[in-house]
Amino acid sequence: MASIFSRIIHGEIPCHKVGEDDRYLAFLDINPVRRGHSLVIPKLEVDKFFDLPPEVLAGIMPFAQGVAKRIAAVVPCDRIGVSVVGLEVPHAHVHLIPIDSIFDMDFSKPKVKMTQEELAALAEQIRRA
Amino acid sequence: MASIFSRIIHGEIPCHKVGEDDRYLAFLDINPVRRGHSLVIPKLEVDKFFDLPPEVLAGIMPFAQGVAKRIAAVVPCDRIGVSVVGLEVPHAHVHLIPIDSIFDMDFSKPKVKMTQEELAALAEQIRRA
Repeated sequence: MASIFSRIIHGEIPCHKVGEDDRYLAFLDINPVRRGHSLVIPKLEVDKFFDLPPEVLAGIMPFAQGVAKRIAAVVPCDRIGVSVVGLEVPHAHVHLIPIDSIFDMDFSKPKVKMTQEELAALAEQIRRA
Repeated sequence: MASIFSRIIHGEIPCHKVGEDDRYLAFLDINPVRRGHSLVIPKLEVDKFFDLPPEVLAGIMPFAQGVAKRIAAVVPCDRIGVSVVGLEVPHAHVHLIPIDSIFDMDFSKPKVKMTQEELAALAEQIRRA
Protein backbone atom coordinates (compact mmCIF):
# COMPACT_ATOMS: atom_id res chain seq x y z
CA MET A 1 0.00 0.00 0.00
CA ALA A 2 1.27 3.48 -0.85
CA SER A 3 2.50 5.50 2.13
CA ILE A 4 0.60 8.59 3.15
CA PHE A 5 3.47 10.58 1.64
CA SER A 6 3.17 8.79 -1.72
CA ARG A 7 -0.54 9.60 -1.65
CA ILE A 8 0.40 13.26 -1.09
CA ILE A 9 2.88 13.10 -3.99
CA HIS A 10 0.14 11.66 -6.23
CA GLY A 11 -2.30 14.38 -5.18
CA GLU A 12 -4.69 11.97 -3.47
CA ILE A 13 -4.20 13.82 -0.16
CA PRO A 14 -3.74 17.61 -0.16
CA CYS A 15 -0.68 19.34 1.28
CA HIS A 16 0.60 22.86 1.81
CA LYS A 17 3.43 22.65 -0.70
CA VAL A 18 6.56 24.75 -0.21
CA GLY A 19 8.80 23.22 -2.87
CA GLU A 20 8.91 20.55 -5.57
CA ASP A 21 11.07 19.26 -8.37
CA ASP A 22 11.14 16.00 -10.32
CA ARG A 23 12.64 14.01 -7.42
CA TYR A 24 11.56 15.72 -4.19
CA LEU A 25 8.56 17.37 -2.56
CA ALA A 26 8.44 19.75 0.44
CA PHE A 27 5.34 20.72 2.39
CA LEU A 28 4.36 22.13 5.76
CA ASP A 29 3.98 19.70 8.66
CA ILE A 30 0.34 20.01 9.76
CA ASN A 31 1.39 19.43 13.40
CA PRO A 32 4.40 21.75 13.51
CA VAL A 33 6.76 21.81 16.46
CA ARG A 34 7.33 25.39 15.33
CA ARG A 35 5.71 27.64 12.71
CA GLY A 36 7.40 26.91 9.36
CA HIS A 37 8.24 23.29 10.25
CA SER A 38 8.32 21.48 6.90
CA LEU A 39 8.95 18.00 5.57
CA VAL A 40 11.15 17.17 2.60
CA ILE A 41 10.53 13.79 1.02
CA PRO A 42 11.98 11.92 -1.93
CA LYS A 43 9.32 10.88 -4.43
CA LEU A 44 10.89 7.43 -4.30
CA GLU A 45 9.14 5.55 -1.49
CA VAL A 46 11.75 3.95 0.78
CA ASP A 47 11.25 3.49 4.53
CA LYS A 48 14.68 4.20 6.00
CA PHE A 49 16.61 7.34 5.04
CA PHE A 50 19.95 5.55 4.74
CA ASP A 51 18.40 2.85 2.53
CA LEU A 52 17.78 5.50 -0.15
CA PRO A 53 20.01 5.14 -3.22
CA PRO A 54 23.14 7.31 -2.88
CA GLU A 55 22.04 9.50 -5.80
CA VAL A 56 18.74 10.30 -4.04
CA LEU A 57 20.61 11.03 -0.79
CA ALA A 58 22.99 13.26 -2.77
CA GLY A 59 20.16 15.40 -4.11
CA ILE A 60 18.03 15.76 -1.02
CA MET A 61 20.11 18.29 0.96
CA PRO A 62 20.78 20.66 -1.97
CA PHE A 63 17.01 20.58 -2.62
CA ALA A 64 16.30 21.12 1.12
CA GLN A 65 18.75 24.04 1.10
CA GLY A 66 16.51 26.05 -1.23
CA VAL A 67 13.46 25.26 0.89
CA ALA A 68 15.33 26.10 4.12
CA LYS A 69 16.42 29.49 2.79
CA ARG A 70 12.85 30.34 1.82
CA ILE A 71 11.51 29.26 5.24
CA ALA A 72 14.19 31.35 6.99
CA ALA A 73 13.24 34.34 4.85
CA VAL A 74 9.67 34.15 6.19
CA VAL A 75 10.06 32.79 9.73
CA PRO A 76 12.58 34.70 11.87
CA CYS A 77 15.06 32.21 13.39
CA ASP A 78 18.75 31.65 14.03
CA ARG A 79 18.92 28.81 11.49
CA ILE A 80 17.03 25.81 10.10
CA GLY A 81 17.55 22.57 12.02
CA VAL A 82 17.32 19.15 10.40
CA SER A 83 15.95 15.94 11.86
CA VAL A 84 15.41 12.50 10.36
CA VAL A 85 13.65 10.07 12.66
CA GLY A 86 11.09 8.24 10.58
CA LEU A 87 9.62 5.81 13.08
CA GLU A 88 5.99 6.77 12.31
CA VAL A 89 5.65 6.96 8.52
CA PRO A 90 7.54 4.31 6.48
CA HIS A 91 8.63 6.80 3.80
CA ALA A 92 11.94 8.57 4.42
CA HIS A 93 11.44 12.23 5.32
CA VAL A 94 13.54 15.14 6.53
CA HIS A 95 12.15 17.61 9.06
CA LEU A 96 13.23 21.23 8.51
CA ILE A 97 12.58 23.27 11.65
CA PRO A 98 13.28 26.96 12.31
CA ILE A 99 15.32 27.04 15.53
CA ASP A 100 16.74 29.45 18.04
CA SER A 101 17.46 26.85 20.71
CA ILE A 102 17.73 23.08 20.98
CA PHE A 103 14.27 23.07 22.57
CA ASP A 104 12.75 24.14 19.26
CA MET A 105 13.54 20.62 18.00
CA ASP A 106 11.80 18.85 20.88
CA PHE A 107 9.13 16.68 19.25
CA SER A 108 7.60 15.80 22.62
CA LYS A 109 6.41 19.32 23.44
CA PRO A 110 2.89 20.49 22.52
CA LYS A 111 2.55 21.23 18.82
CA VAL A 112 1.76 24.69 17.44
CA LYS A 113 -1.93 24.98 16.58
CA MET A 114 -2.48 26.37 13.08
CA THR A 115 -5.67 26.39 11.03
CA GLN A 116 -5.71 25.15 7.43
CA GLU A 117 -6.07 28.79 6.34
CA GLU A 118 -3.01 29.83 8.33
CA LEU A 119 -0.99 26.91 6.93
CA ALA A 120 -2.09 27.76 3.36
CA ALA A 121 -1.13 31.42 3.78
CA LEU A 122 2.27 30.50 5.27
CA ALA A 123 2.99 27.99 2.49
CA GLU A 124 2.24 30.65 -0.12
CA GLN A 125 4.58 33.12 1.63
CA ILE A 126 7.36 30.50 1.67
CA ARG A 127 6.82 29.54 -1.98
CA ARG A 128 7.09 33.20 -2.99
CA ALA A 129 10.08 34.01 -0.76
CA MET B 1 40.26 31.06 15.07
CA ALA B 2 39.84 27.49 13.87
CA SER B 3 36.78 25.66 15.26
CA ILE B 4 37.30 22.73 17.60
CA PHE B 5 36.27 20.53 14.68
CA SER B 6 38.90 22.04 12.36
CA ARG B 7 41.45 21.36 15.09
CA ILE B 8 40.27 17.74 15.14
CA ILE B 9 40.54 17.56 11.33
CA HIS B 10 44.11 18.89 11.55
CA GLY B 11 45.03 16.36 14.24
CA GLU B 12 45.60 19.01 16.93
CA ILE B 13 42.86 17.42 19.07
CA PRO B 14 42.41 13.62 19.07
CA CYS B 15 39.16 11.93 18.07
CA HIS B 16 37.76 8.42 17.82
CA LYS B 17 37.49 8.32 14.05
CA VAL B 18 34.87 6.15 12.38
CA GLY B 19 35.22 7.38 8.79
CA GLU B 20 37.13 9.82 6.59
CA ASP B 21 37.59 10.79 2.99
CA ASP B 22 39.03 13.87 1.29
CA ARG B 23 36.00 16.05 2.11
CA TYR B 24 34.43 14.65 5.30
CA LEU B 25 35.37 13.24 8.70
CA ALA B 26 33.27 11.13 11.09
CA PHE B 27 34.06 10.43 14.74
CA LEU B 28 32.32 9.33 17.92
CA ASP B 29 30.64 12.01 20.04
CA ILE B 30 32.43 11.89 23.40
CA ASN B 31 29.15 12.75 25.19
CA PRO B 32 26.86 10.34 23.34
CA VAL B 33 23.10 10.44 23.76
CA ARG B 34 23.37 6.78 22.86
CA ARG B 35 26.29 4.37 22.33
CA GLY B 36 27.47 4.76 18.72
CA HIS B 37 26.37 8.42 18.45
CA SER B 38 28.73 9.94 15.88
CA LEU B 39 29.35 13.28 14.21
CA VAL B 40 29.90 13.78 10.49
CA ILE B 41 31.58 17.05 9.54
CA PRO B 42 32.69 18.61 6.28
CA LYS B 43 36.36 19.54 6.28
CA LEU B 44 35.27 22.92 4.99
CA GLU B 45 34.61 25.09 8.05
CA VAL B 46 31.21 26.78 7.68
CA ASP B 47 28.94 27.56 10.67
CA LYS B 48 25.45 26.85 9.35
CA PHE B 49 24.64 23.59 7.57
CA PHE B 50 22.54 25.25 4.86
CA ASP B 51 25.29 27.79 4.17
CA LEU B 52 27.53 24.95 2.93
CA PRO B 53 28.12 24.99 -0.84
CA PRO B 54 25.57 22.75 -2.63
CA GLU B 55 28.34 20.35 -3.73
CA VAL B 56 29.41 19.82 -0.10
CA LEU B 57 25.77 19.30 0.94
CA ALA B 58 25.41 16.84 -1.94
CA GLY B 59 28.29 14.68 -0.73
CA ILE B 60 27.61 14.65 2.99
CA MET B 61 24.65 12.23 3.14
CA PRO B 62 26.15 9.61 0.80
CA PHE B 63 29.29 9.76 2.99
CA ALA B 64 27.15 9.55 6.15
CA GLN B 65 25.33 6.56 4.66
CA GLY B 66 28.48 4.46 4.76
CA VAL B 67 29.18 5.50 8.35
CA ALA B 68 25.56 4.87 9.37
CA LYS B 69 25.60 1.35 7.94
CA ARG B 70 28.79 0.54 9.84
CA ILE B 71 27.38 1.95 13.10
CA ALA B 72 24.18 -0.08 12.63
CA ALA B 73 26.25 -3.21 12.04
CA VAL B 74 27.86 -2.78 15.47
CA VAL B 75 25.13 -1.15 17.58
CA PRO B 76 21.77 -2.96 17.48
CA CYS B 77 19.02 -0.45 16.59
CA ASP B 78 15.98 0.03 14.41
CA ARG B 79 17.74 2.65 12.28
CA ILE B 80 20.15 5.59 12.36
CA GLY B 81 18.55 8.96 13.09
CA VAL B 82 19.95 12.25 11.82
CA SER B 83 20.01 15.62 13.56
CA VAL B 84 21.57 18.93 12.59
CA VAL B 85 21.29 21.60 15.26
CA GLY B 86 24.64 23.34 15.43
CA LEU B 87 24.02 26.01 18.04
CA GLU B 88 27.09 25.11 20.13
CA VAL B 89 30.00 24.63 17.69
CA PRO B 90 30.18 27.04 14.71
CA HIS B 91 31.21 24.30 12.26
CA ALA B 92 28.36 22.46 10.52
CA HIS B 93 27.95 18.92 11.81
CA VAL B 94 25.51 16.06 11.42
CA HIS B 95 24.62 13.85 14.39
CA LEU B 96 24.12 10.17 13.55
CA ILE B 97 22.30 8.40 16.39
CA PRO B 98 21.22 4.76 16.65
CA ILE B 99 17.51 4.88 17.50
CA ASP B 100 14.66 2.62 18.48
CA SER B 101 12.35 5.40 19.64
CA ILE B 102 12.11 9.17 19.35
CA PHE B 103 13.46 9.43 22.90
CA ASP B 104 16.83 8.15 21.70
CA MET B 105 17.25 11.52 19.98
CA ASP B 106 16.53 13.58 23.09
CA PHE B 107 19.65 15.70 23.63
CA SER B 108 18.40 16.89 27.03
CA LYS B 109 18.53 13.51 28.73
CA PRO B 110 21.63 12.39 30.66
CA LYS B 111 24.46 11.34 28.36
CA VAL B 112 25.86 7.81 28.22
CA LYS B 113 29.07 7.57 30.24
CA MET B 114 31.88 5.93 28.26
CA THR B 115 35.60 5.85 29.04
CA GLN B 116 38.19 6.80 26.42
CA GLU B 117 39.10 3.10 26.21
CA GLU B 118 35.48 2.13 25.55
CA LEU B 119 35.16 4.84 22.90
CA ALA B 120 38.40 3.75 21.22
CA ALA B 121 37.29 0.10 21.15
CA LEU B 122 33.88 1.02 19.74
CA ALA B 123 35.41 3.27 17.06
CA GLU B 124 37.68 0.43 15.95
CA GLN B 125 34.71 -1.96 15.75
CA ILE B 126 32.79 0.54 13.61
CA ARG B 127 35.77 1.23 11.33
CA ARG B 128 36.16 -2.52 10.74
CA ALA B 129 32.44 -3.26 10.30
